[in-house]
Amino acid sequence: MNMEERVLSTEKIYDGVIINVEKEKVALPDGHESYREIVRHSGAVAVLAITNDNKVILVKQWRSPIAKTTLEIPAGKLDDRDEGNALHAVNRELNEEIRLKATQLKKVTGFYSSVGFSDEYMTLYVAKNLKPVSDELPRDPGEDLKVKAYSLDELKALMATGQIEDAKTVMAIWYFELMQLKQAQD
Amino acid sequence: MNMEERVLSTEKIYDGVIINVEKEKVALPDGHESYREIVRHSGAVAVLAITNDNKVILVKQWRSPIAKTTLEIPAGKLDDRDEGNALHAVNRELNEEIRLKATQLKKVTGFYSSVGFSDEYMTLYVAKNLKPVSDELPRDPGEDLKVKAYSLDELKALMATGQIEDAKTVMAIWYFELMQLKQAQD
Repeated sequence: MNMEERVLSTEKIYDGVIINVEKEKVALPDGHESYREIVRHSGAVAVLAITNDNKVILVKQWRSPIAKTTLEIPAGKLDDRDEGNALHAVNRELNEEIRLKATQLKKVTGFYSSVGFSDEYMTLYVAKNLKPVSDELPRDPGEDLKVKAYSLDELKALMATGQIEDAKTVMAIWYFELMQLKQAQD
Repeated sequence: MNMEERVLSTEKIYDGVIINVEKEKVALPDGHESYREIVRHSGAVAVLAITNDNKVILVKQWRSPIAKTTLEIPAGKLDDRDEGNALHAVNRELNEEIRLKATQLKKVTGFYSSVGFSDEYMTLYVAKNLKPVSDELPRDPGEDLKVKAYSLDELKALMATGQIEDAKTVMAIWYFELMQLKQAQD
């Protein structure tokens, strides 16, 4: 069965800094026409950063889309400086957001954040053996962060009380719990 | 430390069917001004639907933002008919997408899909004891779906080969694996 939708025309709606928005006119497989609203994004990285005493580092920051602060794992979007190199972005975000560098860094997996309307692709890494950086990169204006490390029990309590409600952070916590359960089995 | 950004003005960029787009001018805590691009969304539900033989049901569908098919757990956005009742949306999506109803339904957690630029909030449920529906709801035009159930081993292989790359589905699989490991410990 062919599921492909053929793009008939694309209307540019908005050309922004973080996102571009398009409206596509498409032909459905059955021949009918429809419209698709699409948010284009350059992609992002996120890092499950684990301290030597087995805690996960979260940053607290203001998020304007929801007009409140969140607790999130360090993350950031890919930009021109990265030239498609996600590891470059990971190292920059670890430096900018938590002032640490990882001597152990591994890709976990990659995924589309909200594929119904956006092409944002995020790659999740796990970072261990963290050391303070000697060369602090400048932060973006308004990148005002509070940084703290939490144990698995603390993370689960923060999820249960709704204080952690960021998708990539929930994912990372479940992955962290899986790592621990599997280690305990070995 | 005050992290709040004060909204000075809001420019409507786009008023769509699935999304609205706004550009906010904000005052940062230090007094500087900046802009925030925001995609507004009505919210969504997603369902980890587990069959009686302990498999997870995925739907294959075309996703225009990435111009390819994906494998995803059943999901859908909240609409006016739901009047804010997420369970109503869950039952509709289970019917529309996989033609099943759940006699056991539990909320797992809720999260913002991509809080950097969007307010989309998704609630994840786990559904068990699935039974065929007698009253099939009509599908949206172009909602052409293939439905199949996968074991945990199959899901892990699909993730490893990049055939599953949808955030909520990756999350749900890790949660499913956690459920199994914890059950095995009891």
